[in-house]
Amino acid sequence: MSESWLSKVNWTHDGLVPVIAQETGTGKVLMFAWMNREALKRTAECGEAVYWSRSRKKLWHKGEESGHVQKVKEIRLDCDEDVILLEVEQIGGIACHTGRHDCFFQKLESDTWIIDAPVIKDPAEIYKK
Amino acid sequence: MSESWLSKVNWTHDGLVPVIAQETGTGKVLMFAWMNREALKRTAECGEAVYWSRSRKKLWHKGEESGHVQKVKEIRLDCDEDVILLEVEQIGGIACHTGRHDCFFQKLESDTWIIDAPVIKDPAEIYKK
Repeated sequence: MSESWLSKVNWTHDGLVPVIAQETGTGKVLMFAWMNREALKRTAECGEAVYWSRSRKKLWHKGEESGHVQKVKEIRLDCDEDVILLEVEQIGGIACHTGRHDCFFQKLESDTWIIDAPVIKDPAEIYKK
Repeated sequence: MSESWLSKVNWTHDGLVPVIAQETGTGKVLMFAWMNREALKRTAECGEAVYWSRSRKKLWHKGEESGHVQKVKEIRLDCDEDVILLEVEQIGGIACHTGRHDCFFQKLESDTWIIDAPVIKDPAEIYKK
């Protein structure tokens, strides 16, 4: 497979691109993360989301510990070619490390952030060795 | 209105936060942009999306030229408190400066980015003085 499509992406100075993961069917925005060129290449090749962990400074195959992998249905690029939108099937129905369906569980109500989504599974259960 | 909710956001070193704008009803991801503290404050106050333009280095009231403002229905914050998700009504049905409904009109098919969304209105018409 040619890699010219990877060169179309306008990578940041750090060689990264922001990525939005959206759930197929529900349309819910699950999470936001980053990819480098290798992560995007692997995502396209293996059909599961592989991100770049900025904190751990390494490739992060989402779900490698939890089993909550993301099966990629579609990869999209925006008008400026510097943002990726993934359409994914979220295995396990849990995208967030807090054990919630998605990461956007805090909603602004007047001047307070309110948590309005339940913990589906205790993270201690999800990440136990 | 207290501003303590603004301090809950984990701003980047540049004082910014990434923002995903999602269309109410359709669930379509319209665009991705950035806000600084003032932009987020104004967004909450006026009920229309105000971003920080990193290229122009100034506040950008989305739609100020085109009329394609975004009426904000909901403001969400993610688990790490460093990403904002806006639910918006897209006035004019056009979020992208190319005249398309949203910015994610390029889809990866094998190793090529394919444009699969029409231009609804010519940008020359949208941005004419």
